[in-house]
Amino acid sequence: MRQVPADPDRVTAVYRIEPDAIAPEELARLIAIEQTVEIPAALIPPGKIQDEVVGRVESVTPDPEASGSHRITISYGAELAGDLFGLLAVAIGNAPMYGGVRLVELQPPRALLEALSGPNHGVEGVRRMCGVLGRPLLATALKPQGSSVAELAAIGEAFARGGGDLVKDDQNLTDDFEAFRGRVTACGEAVERGNQVTGRRCLYLPHAGAPAEELERYVEFVAEAGLPGVLICPMITGLDTMRALAERYPLIFMGHPSLTGTYTHAPGHGVAHGVLLGTLFRLAGADISVFPDAGGRFRYTEAQCADITERLREPLGGLRQAWPSPAGGMGPADVGRICETYGPDTLLLIGGALLGYPGGIEAGTRQILDRIREVHPEVSIEPADALRPSLPEPRRLAFRRDWNWEGRESSAYKDAGDLTFRGVRRVELVGRFGERTRCDLRYFEVEPGGHTSLERHLHTHVVIGARGEGVLLLGGRRMPLRHLDVACVGPLEAHQLRNETTEPFGFFCVVDHDRDRPVRLE
Amino acid sequence: MRQVPADPDRVTAVYRIEPDAIAPEELARLIAIEQTVEIPAALIPPGKIQDEVVGRVESVTPDPEASGSHRITISYGAELAGDLFGLLAVAIGNAPMYGGVRLVELQPPRALLEALSGPNHGVEGVRRMCGVLGRPLLATALKPQGSSVAELAAIGEAFARGGGDLVKDDQNLTDDFEAFRGRVTACGEAVERGNQVTGRRCLYLPHAGAPAEELERYVEFVAEAGLPGVLICPMITGLDTMRALAERYPLIFMGHPSLTGTYTHAPGHGVAHGVLLGTLFRLAGADISVFPDAGGRFRYTEAQCADITERLREPLGGLRQAWPSPAGGMGPADVGRICETYGPDTLLLIGGALLGYPGGIEAGTRQILDRIREVHPEVSIEPADALRPSLPEPRRLAFRRDWNWEGRESSAYKDAGDLTFRGVRRVELVGRFGERTRCDLRYFEVEPGGHTSLERHLHTHVVIGARGEGVLLLGGRRMPLRHLDVACVGPLEAHQLRNETTEPFGFFCVVDHDRDRPVRLE
Repeated sequence: MRQVPADPDRVTAVYRIEPDAIAPEELARLIAIEQTVEIPAALIPPGKIQDEVVGRVESVTPDPEASGSHRITISYGAELAGDLFGLLAVAIGNAPMYGGVRLVELQPPRALLEALSGPNHGVEGVRRMCGVLGRPLLATALKPQGSSVAELAAIGEAFARGGGDLVKDDQNLTDDFEAFRGRVTACGEAVERGNQVTGRRCLYLPHAGAPAEELERYVEFVAEAGLPGVLICPMITGLDTMRALAERYPLIFMGHPSLTGTYTHAPGHGVAHGVLLGTLFRLAGADISVFPDAGGRFRYTEAQCADITERLREPLGGLRQAWPSPAGGMGPADVGRICETYGPDTLLLIGGALLGYPGGIEAGTRQILDRIREVHPEVSIEPADALRPSLPEPRRLAFRRDWNWEGRESSAYKDAGDLTFRGVRRVELVGRFGERTRCDLRYFEVEPGGHTSLERHLHTHVVIGARGEGVLLLGGRRMPLRHLDVACVGPLEAHQLRNETTEPFGFFCVVDHDRDRPVRLE
Repeated sequence: MRQVPADPDRVTAVYRIEPDAIAPEELARLIAIEQTVEIPAALIPPGKIQDEVVGRVESVTPDPEASGSHRITISYGAELAGDLFGLLAVAIGNAPMYGGVRLVELQPPRALLEALSGPNHGVEGVRRMCGVLGRPLLATALKPQGSSVAELAAIGEAFARGGGDLVKDDQNLTDDFEAFRGRVTACGEAVERGNQVTGRRCLYLPHAGAPAEELERYVEFVAEAGLPGVLICPMITGLDTMRALAERYPLIFMGHPSLTGTYTHAPGHGVAHGVLLGTLFRLAGADISVFPDAGGRFRYTEAQCADITERLREPLGGLRQAWPSPAGGMGPADVGRICETYGPDTLLLIGGALLGYPGGIEAGTRQILDRIREVHPEVSIEPADALRPSLPEPRRLAFRRDWNWEGRESSAYKDAGDLTFRGVRRVELVGRFGERTRCDLRYFEVEPGGHTSLERHLHTHVVIGARGEGVLLLGGRRMPLRHLDVACVGPLEAHQLRNETTEPFGFFCVVDHDRDRPVRLE
């Protein structure tokens, strides 16, 4: 059924198309153009654009599974999918606006697979953090929304006391940052209390759900608090947002399927379950992909669940394998079946049924784990160290009378070959040594007669005069800069600092850590 | 057809459900629980959670348009949709994982409508920027992908010379920041050369398409370059990402439908065209919503296009009306029909057909505009001023011998009622006066015997000793801070600055502009 991609250096996409007035060969050609140059075929310039940019129809064959339907395979140049944004645009993009088009297979190009990090921890990493080998892991959710923090924390503690492996927030738990901080702290401590009793390590993953401009702060808090991971709804935040966060924070990322039903659930249209909840979630850094099991309240089929699971585990460049996490109304009676169907590398997510367990959550957790161990025996290992990021040592840079700082090197005075600056030395004080500041602090010193480059850039500067006296040229104006004078250089303002005296002129410069490259103006 | 929402202070969602083994009343009840508490009905705690958190089934009625289908109306408490993230989660969320469920109407709660800004310019604002009243506007796209910058710029210049109103990048144009900057600068200058010839104002909107962590820089560049707006693919970036960018940058946001076909195009499933490309795009700040016209290569129906158009224009809190922009293979022959169908407040987007116009782009633009004016006569006005954000005046804050700065006020020394700090005055130097820096700069001065609060927070500090000598308590350590010593306070490190001398102790403090609230530790 799976097709071998013709060329690992291209994007290969297989679409299933329903019977239609347009012949399958013609629709294949239309999609190959639609996703790339998006102009009428007659206007496509010959040469590079026709040969390298337009998608290439590799095959059109009757679909063996659906009478009357066809499978069309189109490949696209790797440069159209240099990042996840590009892959989504070229492989999905406009194509579903033709009705009856479903993306059923997706092979990213080798270059993209090498550029993406994928899951931070994957199957093996999460096992090491829990200290559990050999059997499926058991997870639950803190719910329902509307409960008090104490009620939610009590669920986490009871589950941990019962020996459970992973607690996640319900994805409906969203609140402002201060409430989030309070809730997450309390629930993290509660799970830890449970761990103290068992000697095991149950992991707690809060839901990072917040407006776009605040989302990173939530994830950052989780990382700084030493918690092991977060739950994310990538189709709400944007898949590539999860990818960016996962690259920046060495956490477990658990992807929730909210909104994915719009992509997957129309038979014959959209994106196949395995491509979205398997391949794309994994490319976007999901260590764990949650989806409704075929036995639950959503009517996923066994084939759809197997498709997701296969894509989470199959070879995909050098990316780690991710955990399938079947969920959605599973109860204790389903445990044996799930363990047998999915195998040991599976994260069972049992929420509501555990909340209502007759003997309580702690006893229920223990009984479900016993049932899991009957199918796949457990091997315990010492859990790996917690993930708490190492903070930089408290650090003070003592000022020296020679205008240097202990522990920091000064670049020598030098004249650039291009002559855009002259007689400037620099001391990088903060920002290049693992600090978490968003701004860097540098000290510059300009010799008598020297000057910095005349330049402009999008990022801004704050300068503070420190030694002697200089001149700041700013947008055509001249202004002096003396000891402890402060000046701002705005976006795209041409600026230069000059020393027109006979003594050294030194100043501090505060600048965004992530910044654009200056444009030299002379 | 449209239903009056029962309560403007709640979210009201209407779903169309296909004939199914589950009775419509039962499915309605399941969805109302699914989207909120997500636990078995028997476990829902009575009281607040049952009464206020669980969704309320308002009605279940046969669908007048589809035999056997039903329309179910569910309302949700406004606090579940305090932001756009919450609205997407509660109104769409898991529901589409039940197959055959389509969100066909969505009324956000009043509180959310008051919290969201919606389109920055809307129909009237874009008209003022173009200087064109009375008729539909004409747009084109720079394409195809793979063309040289000079070729793309030439299209923009010819279109502007022909009197066109708006040029957008093709959404397939994505490149790294340096290439983007070069291309956008060249195309912006080319459109401006065309404007010089005509005396009109054609607007150029580059495509901001980039990995999540870089996207804002692209938008920022467009704003700083004085260009009027951007094209965004909100279903790739995340809808709420567009909303956040639109709140921050006073640009025109043009929303492209890439990936929306997965939501809209399965009959009987997903999200209706008008809800996604109309209501949700507008809530997320789209001034313009691009979608394929019923007459084009995608088979949108007239009813679907009318649905989108109605939602872009209908009253929606105090939000501005947005432009429908029918596109997708439109040619000159369609102009009259589109003008008549959609009316004057419409942005016609003609791409490929104009590229291949027999007499060239400039002549083609002129002829299409003539045709538009035949249907809806034009009234020209003086275009509103360009949008170039006003940069703060070049600003220097001169240092005074009394340890104050010209143009900045000092807060008096004072003791807080809560005694967490003592004898501290503060001078806000940079960050509160409209600067675009990502960090703020403050000067603090501590009296003999005084101290700052003992506190910790996620954001970091950089401190620079300036006057006298103090003590920095940092994570249980003591260290001196003297003239021009530099120290970093890392995330969540408890810290305090004390003056144990008999002279004033002053220091600069650099801190993230957007930061979390400190937690006091005593």
